Amino acid sequence: MSALKIFAYAIREDEKPFVAQWQEDHPEIEVQFTDQLLNEDTAKLAQGADGVVVFQQLEYTQKTLKALADLGINKMSLRNVGVDNIDQAAAKKYNFQITNVPVYSPNAIAEHAAIQTANVLRQATVMEQKVQAGDLRWAPTIGREVRDQVVGVIGTGHIGQVFMKIMEGFGAKVIAYDLFRNPDLEAKGYYVDSLDDLYAQADVISLHVPDVPANVHMINDESIAKMKDDVVIVNVSRGPLVDTDAVIRGLDSGKVAGFVLDTYENEVGIFNNDWRKKEFPDARLADLIKRPNVALTPHTAFYTTHAVEQMVIQAFDNNLLMIEGKEAKTPVKF
Amino acid sequence: MSALKIFAYAIREDEKPFVAQWQEDHPEIEVQFTDQLLNEDTAKLAQGADGVVVFQQLEYTQKTLKALADLGINKMSLRNVGVDNIDQAAAKKYNFQITNVPVYSPNAIAEHAAIQTANVLRQATVMEQKVQAGDLRWAPTIGREVRDQVVGVIGTGHIGQVFMKIMEGFGAKVIAYDLFRNPDLEAKGYYVDSLDDLYAQADVISLHVPDVPANVHMINDESIAKMKDDVVIVNVSRGPLVDTDAVIRGLDSGKVAGFVLDTYENEVGIFNNDWRKKEFPDARLADLIKRPNVALTPHTAFYTTHAVEQMVIQAFDNNLLMIEGKEAKTPVKF
Repeated sequence: MSALKIFAYAIREDEKPFVAQWQEDHPEIEVQFTDQLLNEDTAKLAQGADGVVVFQQLEYTQKTLKALADLGINKMSLRNVGVDNIDQAAAKKYNFQITNVPVYSPNAIAEHAAIQTANVLRQATVMEQKVQAGDLRWAPTIGREVRDQVVGVIGTGHIGQVFMKIMEGFGAKVIAYDLFRNPDLEAKGYYVDSLDDLYAQADVISLHVPDVPANVHMINDESIAKMKDDVVIVNVSRGPLVDTDAVIRGLDSGKVAGFVLDTYENEVGIFNNDWRKKEFPDARLADLIKRPNVALTPHTAFYTTHAVEQMVIQAFDNNLLMIEGKEAKTPVKF
Repeated sequence: MSALKIFAYAIREDEKPFVAQWQEDHPEIEVQFTDQLLNEDTAKLAQGADGVVVFQQLEYTQKTLKALADLGINKMSLRNVGVDNIDQAAAKKYNFQITNVPVYSPNAIAEHAAIQTANVLRQATVMEQKVQAGDLRWAPTIGREVRDQVVGVIGTGHIGQVFMKIMEGFGAKVIAYDLFRNPDLEAKGYYVDSLDDLYAQADVISLHVPDVPANVHMINDESIAKMKDDVVIVNVSRGPLVDTDAVIRGLDSGKVAGFVLDTYENEVGIFNNDWRKKEFPDARLADLIKRPNVALTPHTAFYTTHAVEQMVIQAFDNNLLMIEGKEAKTPVKF
């Protein structure tokens, strides 16, 4: 019996050390990879492999999946969470077994939220722009200390909890709201009774809830009106949670002191693209990017070495389990 | 008997709320202030006052002190730490009683060190420059999570201890070195035996030690050679602790992944000045400012609302104690 073989697509430079690490830990498995995306043409690169490891925004079409199936390959492990770009009917037709990596690093996102919140409180961008321009005077660019803030966390899952711990390390007072309360956090007295209570007390409000219909535009003119003056709003969660126009009105009126966002309600097709030689497609986003009290990143909070290591290792682990005929740790059910 | 009167010089906009707060808490005291600096001409503005509250880089000369003394004023409270700009002989001659504010917010400085360290680990400046230019692609701008770092803290006084706590909130492993060990920290096992041990283990090295002769250029070619590859060096303490040229050699070779500095060995006369219409006076500093893996601020770490409140309140408190004939909390001994 020849060695089991895994072929990986679209391996980036930053992933290579972790592919090499996995190979070193599994010398009995043959690992090959390419930097190319998987499509109906590149499928043939996987010939002879028992499974494939993938990560791309590009569609996994019927033709692509058929091309793999024609090579006898129907075990596919995504290095990311999302499965929206998979032709589900085709996947079923060709008997695909698919895995994803649903959790790779809550800390990546929670740390990003904390750091950017602190940057906005410190007016870090204003100071950096002054320094770059040669203005080395400190006044009037004064900072607010994290420890002096009441931090309101909406949603106390994995990421929310890590965010709470970081903020407490700074010495901030943390309060929380969640429809589904964590018993440990409840026992420690973190929860307020209502969102209105949280809005009334918090200097920083950070969202860590899913993008379900009830949460769409939960941050809007009405909720902002209930918040304290000089509030900082943080959304590293899902774009649709925030009515962007309402936050902009708050920034313009001075009610909202700062806005941290790693996600944006119209981000699809805009983020993860290079617009330097094309017309920028969203005037509102361009305006936000220019504001020094807005800390905007294009859905990059997840992108740490820790997360990438987990995405690679878990995807290869899953793929190996499947090609050995075992149960994968995180199978995708359509 | 008429009301006691305190006159304050060089009150900035960001200090006014705290002056007003102190006045509200002391309705029996007459408080007046100006935005002008104290010199031999402006001394007369304090006529009729029992004491003055001051803060300036400008020298407190023999003539200035005599002008105050001629008005019967010899009680002067600094809103800052440093007393180097006071003519000590004149202060003695005119029987001045002087106070300063030696500790106003260790957190201001520790938070700044932590935030900037996290920014450098995240490549925040690289990402910000991409976003500002319209390049919204995330790869290859990958971050290192704070929790994955071994953080080496040199000097475990007030500021070092706050920094340690923040880094632990992120989940980092913290080790420390100090000639004078804190018993609590020692019991908890933070201390390594030598600086060499710290250099060998730490991914981030942050300095929180005084600028005594033995510490000058403690970060140099030799110590950097003992550090791990991709180390981040953090100096929000005193400029002379770091041989800047050695760190630049480390940055150029790739040995040093990042450099956080809020203080610089040649900063006097350069920081807190506006160079936008003048020739920038220090080519090495200009080079550091341009590097995206260097987070440079011009001695602004202290500058938070919390710190300013303490500087104002403590200075007025000290001045009141003196003019009431009581012992000040933090008198300056020449």
